[in-house]
Amino acid sequence: MSDNTKVHKIALLGLGTVGTGVYKLVEERQKDEFYFKTGTRLEISKILVRDAKKKRANILPQITITDQWSDIINDPEIDIIVEVMGGIEPARSYILEALNAGKNVVTANKDLLAVHGKELLDAAKENKRDLLFEASVAGAIPIIRPLKQCLAGNHIDEIMGIVNGTTNYILTKMTAEGMDFAQALAKATELGYAEADPTSDIEGYDAARKVAILASIAFHSRVVLDDVYVEGITAISAQDIRYANEAGYAMKLIGVAKNTPSGIEARVHPMLIPLSHPLATVNDSFNAIFVHGDAAGEVMFYGKGAGELPTASAVVGDIIDVVRNIQYGSLGRISCSCYKNLPIKSIDDIESRYFIRVSCQDQTGVLGKIATVFGDNEVSISQFIQKDIVDGNAELVIITHKVFERDIRKSVDALNKLDVVHKVSSIIRVYG
Amino acid sequence: MSDNTKVHKIALLGLGTVGTGVYKLVEERQKDEFYFKTGTRLEISKILVRDAKKKRANILPQITITDQWSDIINDPEIDIIVEVMGGIEPARSYILEALNAGKNVVTANKDLLAVHGKELLDAAKENKRDLLFEASVAGAIPIIRPLKQCLAGNHIDEIMGIVNGTTNYILTKMTAEGMDFAQALAKATELGYAEADPTSDIEGYDAARKVAILASIAFHSRVVLDDVYVEGITAISAQDIRYANEAGYAMKLIGVAKNTPSGIEARVHPMLIPLSHPLATVNDSFNAIFVHGDAAGEVMFYGKGAGELPTASAVVGDIIDVVRNIQYGSLGRISCSCYKNLPIKSIDDIESRYFIRVSCQDQTGVLGKIATVFGDNEVSISQFIQKDIVDGNAELVIITHKVFERDIRKSVDALNKLDVVHKVSSIIRVYG
Repeated sequence: MSDNTKVHKIALLGLGTVGTGVYKLVEERQKDEFYFKTGTRLEISKILVRDAKKKRANILPQITITDQWSDIINDPEIDIIVEVMGGIEPARSYILEALNAGKNVVTANKDLLAVHGKELLDAAKENKRDLLFEASVAGAIPIIRPLKQCLAGNHIDEIMGIVNGTTNYILTKMTAEGMDFAQALAKATELGYAEADPTSDIEGYDAARKVAILASIAFHSRVVLDDVYVEGITAISAQDIRYANEAGYAMKLIGVAKNTPSGIEARVHPMLIPLSHPLATVNDSFNAIFVHGDAAGEVMFYGKGAGELPTASAVVGDIIDVVRNIQYGSLGRISCSCYKNLPIKSIDDIESRYFIRVSCQDQTGVLGKIATVFGDNEVSISQFIQKDIVDGNAELVIITHKVFERDIRKSVDALNKLDVVHKVSSIIRVYG
Repeated sequence: MSDNTKVHKIALLGLGTVGTGVYKLVEERQKDEFYFKTGTRLEISKILVRDAKKKRANILPQITITDQWSDIINDPEIDIIVEVMGGIEPARSYILEALNAGKNVVTANKDLLAVHGKELLDAAKENKRDLLFEASVAGAIPIIRPLKQCLAGNHIDEIMGIVNGTTNYILTKMTAEGMDFAQALAKATELGYAEADPTSDIEGYDAARKVAILASIAFHSRVVLDDVYVEGITAISAQDIRYANEAGYAMKLIGVAKNTPSGIEARVHPMLIPLSHPLATVNDSFNAIFVHGDAAGEVMFYGKGAGELPTASAVVGDIIDVVRNIQYGSLGRISCSCYKNLPIKSIDDIESRYFIRVSCQDQTGVLGKIATVFGDNEVSISQFIQKDIVDGNAELVIITHKVFERDIRKSVDALNKLDVVHKVSSIIRVYG
């Protein structure tokens, strides 16, 4: 199956951070290594950029830099298109055209997959071509292939992970140095961990896209971005984190996907993780994903979730796999596996433990009134902790047993109506 | 590529813990799931056991239980042979015969792969058949496929892991409850974490086999069991663990494989891991493997390294992959990738930090004499800690900077000749 003279030509769409990483890694490994690993040679022949006139000293002169999609889609020598431009359009149209033209596609585009995954995978299947996207979730961490292959014997019922490095970095800073959110975000921006517009990260949408992709694969039923309940970390205070730590928890932005008898839960929100749990020690910009399967038990994957070379690592792994499939005539070997159509649960119907911070009057009888509200709404309390007096108000932390979200919401509405309650400052879900 | 009527027949060699797990999992998933995942159906048709007359109420009556290998190797309907009998012979001969007869093989047999891996993989390649072995290292944890595929774009320079659950359980018990080795081993045996003859686990050979397999794949150069330097945990005392903890380290049995410019290091020995390192919190019978690649950076894989269903999870993942390869005509798609022939480094030439516990006379001038011995042998000291007085002797803990193993050995020989030294109780490598 090896042919020393055959060269597979790749086109790169986009030359931003990830595109540059892919370019560097392919150039670096191009000599003999690809040949030994795949029995063939591969090279990047064309790169699509926005401005083809810009000087790019680091790109080898024999590579065609173009801003014309037609130069790529009409080139019959190109076998593999690597889409690392990001965003929905024109990436979606390009990928569809590429697949329909019989080309294979490797993409890192979570925005696209979390919304148009079905359409793209259907096109791949119809054309018997590969559409691989290991890099779309958690960068360098192998997760898509382990789920689709290594763990294929399992019924996976839960995935839980830290899948956004920016927010994990911010929360780590807030925890370690007592910074407030704005300070930590500024630091993250300064160090390049946060983008100029950090909305998608800090509001949880980036993580939500990854949850949609992971849930679809793990549960064999399509989950899209709109199915994922999302809360970001902008409302988290240093105070919340301190109280959480004192109670034995780390504050993390967690993506959760559960396959329950009443439907799929897919959500992203801050969560208190017990300090003894492996996810509690995943710090800085690292990502980690826990998977629970009925046979495997708990499996965790940890590593860099973003960055030029970590993401390129995943992309190049996919490219090598496509080349193997071309060599062996097995393109489309692993395609969409969403053969079920499971309902999505409303956030009201999820069950969780909760950490609730209440600012209230510092007088006798208050605890009783608050406890009564919870009792009236079927919320069972696990811990009631009296914290500091802040601005003349007593700070109270309540940690509940496992209860329905709708009952928490009712309780909070009722608490906010109590004359002794100044405000409910935080409602944060607790692991377990 | 799907054919609802086609059934792929599997033979199981062995019906011990793993065999039973594979049987249960295949039966459980047999209905529609395999069909949806592979486009075909699969079933276990024959099981090879030592005593075919033994009653086995849990096995479906339509499955042939046999003690005759000929019943299996001569059955043309069997596409896939799952070898979970363990040991070298007859497993080796059976696998070779199976591959030569054009059957595909899935195995969990690390003993065999760590010694005869090349011979078996060569036979698979020659016959253009699959020989998959995800279950041979770290049970349920996806590691072989991630190394061969997801991380294929990387130069991997280091693998470090806790790959033996029995010893990790024993060390966890010794750490958490101050048990000595014998007590903790007895507890592990009682709970079924240690086998009746625990030698292979506690002396480090089981871990060494996994290191040989991982190093071969990661560095593309064959490493066999004999290439791996091995020290077990039988000499570790509760005292060592306590002193290590006090200095900020956890005691773990670590498998290490490094690809250095002067050759491959492959070794298994106890190691002190900083408490802040993710491996330090891998407790009980859990396994974890760290991989460092030049593009991906640090990636970690965590989960159950043994047990009926966790190991079956990996085996069934491999079975599904073989079936996909049969369906797509791509058998042998990923085979042996040892295309280099790198030298193996002697343990004398490795560099490490060391924790050395010395029992010596409790008098002035002793520290100076001991420090002089280290200095004379090019060993630079990082910490000198005076511990308890035990049986009239002062306990001293020395933690070195990174030095050559041969210099440590010379130092220890010289220390043992000093009149003020009672004995060198422990020499344990330190991470970093």
